[in-house]
Amino acid sequence: MTGAEFLMRTLVANGVDVCFMNPGTSEMRFVAALDTVPEMRGVLCLFEGVCAGAADGYARVKGTPACALFHLGPGLANGLANLHNARKARSPVVAVVGEHTTSHLRYDAPLSADIAAFARAVSDEVAVVRTTGELAQAATQTIAAAARPPGRVAAVIVPADISWSAIQAAIHRVNVVRPSAVGDARVADAARLIKEPGTWILLGGTAVNAQALRFAARIEQATGARVAIARNVAKIASGRGLFQPPQVPYFPERALEFFAGARNLILVESEAPVSFFGYPDLPGIMIPESCAVFPLARRAEDGTAALEALAERCAGGVEARITDPAPVASEPGGGLTVDDIGITLAQWMPEGALLSEEAVSSAAAILKYLRAAAPFEWMPVTGGSIGQGLPVAVGAAMAAPGRKVIALEGDGSGMYTPQALWTMAREKLDVLILIIANRRYAILDIEMRRAGVKEIGPEAEAMIDIANPELRWTEIARSMNVPAARVETVEDLRKHLCAGLRERGPMLIEAVV
Amino acid sequence: MTGAEFLMRTLVANGVDVCFMNPGTSEMRFVAALDTVPEMRGVLCLFEGVCAGAADGYARVKGTPACALFHLGPGLANGLANLHNARKARSPVVAVVGEHTTSHLRYDAPLSADIAAFARAVSDEVAVVRTTGELAQAATQTIAAAARPPGRVAAVIVPADISWSAIQAAIHRVNVVRPSAVGDARVADAARLIKEPGTWILLGGTAVNAQALRFAARIEQATGARVAIARNVAKIASGRGLFQPPQVPYFPERALEFFAGARNLILVESEAPVSFFGYPDLPGIMIPESCAVFPLARRAEDGTAALEALAERCAGGVEARITDPAPVASEPGGGLTVDDIGITLAQWMPEGALLSEEAVSSAAAILKYLRAAAPFEWMPVTGGSIGQGLPVAVGAAMAAPGRKVIALEGDGSGMYTPQALWTMAREKLDVLILIIANRRYAILDIEMRRAGVKEIGPEAEAMIDIANPELRWTEIARSMNVPAARVETVEDLRKHLCAGLRERGPMLIEAVV
Repeated sequence: MTGAEFLMRTLVANGVDVCFMNPGTSEMRFVAALDTVPEMRGVLCLFEGVCAGAADGYARVKGTPACALFHLGPGLANGLANLHNARKARSPVVAVVGEHTTSHLRYDAPLSADIAAFARAVSDEVAVVRTTGELAQAATQTIAAAARPPGRVAAVIVPADISWSAIQAAIHRVNVVRPSAVGDARVADAARLIKEPGTWILLGGTAVNAQALRFAARIEQATGARVAIARNVAKIASGRGLFQPPQVPYFPERALEFFAGARNLILVESEAPVSFFGYPDLPGIMIPESCAVFPLARRAEDGTAALEALAERCAGGVEARITDPAPVASEPGGGLTVDDIGITLAQWMPEGALLSEEAVSSAAAILKYLRAAAPFEWMPVTGGSIGQGLPVAVGAAMAAPGRKVIALEGDGSGMYTPQALWTMAREKLDVLILIIANRRYAILDIEMRRAGVKEIGPEAEAMIDIANPELRWTEIARSMNVPAARVETVEDLRKHLCAGLRERGPMLIEAVV
Repeated sequence: MTGAEFLMRTLVANGVDVCFMNPGTSEMRFVAALDTVPEMRGVLCLFEGVCAGAADGYARVKGTPACALFHLGPGLANGLANLHNARKARSPVVAVVGEHTTSHLRYDAPLSADIAAFARAVSDEVAVVRTTGELAQAATQTIAAAARPPGRVAAVIVPADISWSAIQAAIHRVNVVRPSAVGDARVADAARLIKEPGTWILLGGTAVNAQALRFAARIEQATGARVAIARNVAKIASGRGLFQPPQVPYFPERALEFFAGARNLILVESEAPVSFFGYPDLPGIMIPESCAVFPLARRAEDGTAALEALAERCAGGVEARITDPAPVASEPGGGLTVDDIGITLAQWMPEGALLSEEAVSSAAAILKYLRAAAPFEWMPVTGGSIGQGLPVAVGAAMAAPGRKVIALEGDGSGMYTPQALWTMAREKLDVLILIIANRRYAILDIEMRRAGVKEIGPEAEAMIDIANPELRWTEIARSMNVPAARVETVEDLRKHLCAGLRERGPMLIEAVV
């Protein structure tokens, strides 16, 4: 067995059986191992950012790590932005990075780079394999690190000669570590706090699943404590029939208003909320200075079980009452608005859909309508790095072949990783891509003013306006064999959306707003 | 004056007057400064890898730094692969990276990342600005570091609040450092060595310009020493009327054969040649163990002047005799081959063309014909990281508006940074893009076997074959408003190539081979 085959067999033995890859010379033996380890499925991506984001999406949906394969330092570099997002999502991802042969490391060859330095920027778990004897431990250590709650990016750097060398070692299964249980004392403390007025509960991490939300609803209804969802959570259960507490607002003025008067903040797999950016004359932390913070469940702890225990104490007989928002209909005729997109999606999105959302400036307007949609799971951008939406959709579709994946994308944000469409077509992934074409980096209109710029001059305006030339997303899609339609009316949107939801396989709708 | 404006004025005062940018919130004041500093030209790119590669291309052609603007850690991450290539090309590049406000650095916000760690992986010159008072020195230090021979990537990390704060400081011009002169003693030593049989001269860095090559020709003709060009040089003068010494072969067996019997290797802005990758049972260094290495000119020294001095000593009365290769014509009819592309390009490429070349497995077959082309400059991939070809073409066209730029691309390699086409259309850049569509990562066919894989199984084959689905490059081009044609015969190639060369502005030809 070669080192590469050993590594692949170890991955498979530990349930890591999908690898999103963009390989090169130093990874050839790992690629060759696909033919001797049929349990591993290799998924080719045309750009490493797609591999990284797909592994993130896979992990968010399945809860177990996917593998992503990178070609030395620069290949890994192309994946770093989406690994950054995966890190912030606490997604378990095993990054396998090929390296020069050990004897070649001393030279300054073209591709020579400090791979570990690249990897450490997105992970504190980096195993650098230096000898064949180190491979077995590095493999299990990396898998264990990735999977250990709350999940992390873990990289293993494998020189080409270790990949092609013979290895005789036993394949080890890593002990599965479950999230730790929260002790009774902490639950009792939270139960005491919650009786005080001005108490908030902030849900994050995995504690935004349907069950956790139901416990939170009971607690809110029984005690009057207010529940909120943290920003940048990996996957949030949403839609009709679910308790849908508000998310902490994006802009700090609104977030500060949101938490005004808060005296206690109970954290469930979350941290005290900070604003996305710092702004002139505004604090970075979004709760009042006097607000006490109490961690009921930390990141690696079982927040859902802690909420259940807290609900038992505080809301013994209370059932969760859920009031669904009333459905809304679009005004027929006229041009298409972002609101129309939200309304139409809310009407037609099928139950169990997975929404990879990277709509940036259009997100809030659309998501408010989706509260009335059939139950779905919403996957926002976690690390603020644009370019994850389409790759995460690839990974989500691979992880849940029976569910419809919807990628809600800005036209600007989609352009960071359009290569994802090719893998969708190749793997016949069931993804409906909805591009909101406003022809602008529209969020920057707002951010420019917030940074204190009173008037946006023509030169600055040119850096925000992406209408020149106009991107034709339907042609981008067709170039990679994804069927596509451009819509400019509510009627056309509905028609193509329903067709796209009915049929299986990828389809792209460019919605001009 | 704001900090951002101060930084921009300092750049402009030092001749850095083009900025390839993909900005976000933390860079808003730098973008706004474009309206008050009209000498700086902002060029919008839809992906950071394009910004980085364009700055590299600009520097290769103009010899002075361009600036690239990145949005915090993840934005810089997306530029790292092409900054790696720029580093290996010794291209002067000033990377300006926005950072959170200084008061926000203490929080784990979504975009928080160790920007300096990202930057240090491609540069040993990273200035982290912590106070407004540090900005002036950081700015000049970064510019000086980038421009100091032989050129490097230098990054300055600027918190948003320092960008928007008022600053009162003088704008400083950095002393221009020229490459050091090589002393007479070293030239005399080289002149002695060169009389010995088995002496090679390896040209690299800037010492592959037309003048340097003429000196090298005289030396070779007078002394019998053999001249070669290093791999991974930023820009090589090529074509008819020029001395075109062979380049060190890519594969180590051929490189070892090439240097067999070498007893002395005289380095001119180059290093002892190492193979691109390490392989089983082959050394990494491509000259015989017994070969002595003598650095005539180091990287930061003036190799051209050193060659001139050496030519004076060794080849006083000798004129360079150049024998141009005979032109070759394609066989009419039949399908298009890679050879046809080389032959046709050699016939029609205009004098002074700039060739951004990322043809990977097709490169050697094409370049051999280009020895008969009108004089041009060839810009290969320097750091081995695919995805620089189209971005470098963007930068080259910005640096030399009067010259035709030709981007010679593989269909696989073009897909790493296709967003470059949008900037070409937007800025009406005079770039002819020639995509060699072989529908494979064809270099991996070879590398797979070289790594010891005897038979490529179906699963591994699927990771090399990019024909499923077939990429339609004409539609990718049109989606970004670049006119395009698909050709499958020599006649069609000639027709569209001539049209593309005649007209100004971007045009793409997808050549199916």
